[in-house]
Amino acid sequence: MPENVNRQWVLKSRPDGMPTETDFDLAESPIPGPEFGQVLVKSLWNSLDPYMRGRISSSPIGGVIESEAVGRVMESKLDGFKPGDIVRGRIGWQEYGLLDVTSAYAVNPDYGPISTSVGVLGMPGLTAYFGLLDVCEPKPGDTVVVSSASGAVGAVVGQIAKIGGCRVVAIAGSDEKVAYCVDELGFDVGINYKTEDVSEALGKAAPNGVDCYFDNVGGPITEAVMEHLAMYSRTVICGRISEYNEGEPSMGPRILRYLHSTRSRIQGFTVNQYPSQFEDGRAQLARWVKSGEIKYREDIVEGFENSPKAFIGQLGGANFGKLLIKMSDE
Amino acid sequence: MPENVNRQWVLKSRPDGMPTETDFDLAESPIPGPEFGQVLVKSLWNSLDPYMRGRISSSPIGGVIESEAVGRVMESKLDGFKPGDIVRGRIGWQEYGLLDVTSAYAVNPDYGPISTSVGVLGMPGLTAYFGLLDVCEPKPGDTVVVSSASGAVGAVVGQIAKIGGCRVVAIAGSDEKVAYCVDELGFDVGINYKTEDVSEALGKAAPNGVDCYFDNVGGPITEAVMEHLAMYSRTVICGRISEYNEGEPSMGPRILRYLHSTRSRIQGFTVNQYPSQFEDGRAQLARWVKSGEIKYREDIVEGFENSPKAFIGQLGGANFGKLLIKMSDE
Repeated sequence: MPENVNRQWVLKSRPDGMPTETDFDLAESPIPGPEFGQVLVKSLWNSLDPYMRGRISSSPIGGVIESEAVGRVMESKLDGFKPGDIVRGRIGWQEYGLLDVTSAYAVNPDYGPISTSVGVLGMPGLTAYFGLLDVCEPKPGDTVVVSSASGAVGAVVGQIAKIGGCRVVAIAGSDEKVAYCVDELGFDVGINYKTEDVSEALGKAAPNGVDCYFDNVGGPITEAVMEHLAMYSRTVICGRISEYNEGEPSMGPRILRYLHSTRSRIQGFTVNQYPSQFEDGRAQLARWVKSGEIKYREDIVEGFENSPKAFIGQLGGANFGKLLIKMSDE
Repeated sequence: MPENVNRQWVLKSRPDGMPTETDFDLAESPIPGPEFGQVLVKSLWNSLDPYMRGRISSSPIGGVIESEAVGRVMESKLDGFKPGDIVRGRIGWQEYGLLDVTSAYAVNPDYGPISTSVGVLGMPGLTAYFGLLDVCEPKPGDTVVVSSASGAVGAVVGQIAKIGGCRVVAIAGSDEKVAYCVDELGFDVGINYKTEDVSEALGKAAPNGVDCYFDNVGGPITEAVMEHLAMYSRTVICGRISEYNEGEPSMGPRILRYLHSTRSRIQGFTVNQYPSQFEDGRAQLARWVKSGEIKYREDIVEGFENSPKAFIGQLGGANFGKLLIKMSDE
């Protein structure tokens, strides 16, 4: 019985630029017992998200890599939770974790498969929901551009924009992803930024200019979008995957001229600004998923041991849909 | 009697980069007679403003340089205006101009010297008023940074911020200008961007970060301010004097990281977005000027023939206060 082992991915060295697998160490420790007020959770689906690259730059060496996961309560010393319950929380890259009243969230089983609680109905879906509706403020008829359009956030952004009567231009990194955005998700135009000149393609795709830009990438793609802003446009900076591996800021063409001449707004955002509205947002997203108005795609990697490789691939754009590590059979 | 001559500065060649005096031509034409619905105005004070550099890039060769001026009605075929009235309008760089019902604005003589109608009580003052209050949304206790702080717009920005209970950090281009901002206008700290490292100085001047940045300059100064943004800060892009002479966008360090990490907003602006509120804003500014809460400084250049030289100097930061060409004795 090789039991009482909790495998954990810990930070071995702080990456300078793109992480490599040698920056991570697979450690083992005993499965912890919950203290009063805690639950022991066995992780079932671990969520990999690009923003974690930023966290790693300030995480302690030897610490478990941070992430959100969904799992099953194995043992509970916390009121309101019992063994077998499905909960979500910041368990990190490990097989078992402890959560408490401030960090354990019950997952509503009526909403769908539990993996969606860290995907379309979780942080990525809520990020799309609040970032688009609250910061970009789209109006029917607006042209909405979204980068990383086939990803966990981008796909939801575009679909909410379509529900709202917008024209959606998708930017993604392969013909397959672009085809998925247009053919499966119903976006109006797709641009493959690896094979097309983004600025030129946007000139055709958004002849009246870009009213809303949901920015998941930063860097040259964002600069290309800036050249096509409509008057009074709104851009939300949600992610900067093209820049996460940079130490010092890289250089790019100055963008103030475009913001100035179009009286446009650009605004940084994270979903953590909206905690009091999370449940409302989740309920709305769940209705749209149930009705089929929002589709989602999961990119499932089997095996905890593959976490670093999958994460590094994600930072390079290799995943296609919401990236999850399947930790164990449900 | 060398009469019936209207001297005009016209665009001779479109400057590539900083304009030179040879880009302007001093032409003469007969003084026009007003048609039905027009007034003939003799220009008394012509306003020189950095934004005009942008206009010149798209103005017709041979056309009179655009500007706002204040003058006296010499002849009127427009209801509501009579000879002797003081009016303001886009007369341009010429001694006499025609205005009509859409372009002639009566100047309220109760508000103060008529030159203020194109300065502290005109477009520059209103730009400060709406850009600061409506876009930057300062709150008491906020740290407000303003560039070109001794200029026609910046000086009003800082003084309104002080009235509102903010801490004001002034960025200007000489020790004399910095001293004026601090000693005369009551700003809290001044930074001479020509002799100090702006980022380092801001680290000391705004230890809790910059809540509001009123940007008149763009370029490296703006990039330095971005490094010091407070959470949820608001920047208004009002002017980009450091960039106006550029053709293609110049390169600079990418700023999205700062906006993203602080959930900050940056927004392009011109005062022309607020026409319905101009008279309210002007009345408030006039009250503050009367009460002494807002001071203003005029940089008066005598002689119409000196217009190009004065304007070129302004683009290089040579003026000190609101730059006016004195066209004639009142």
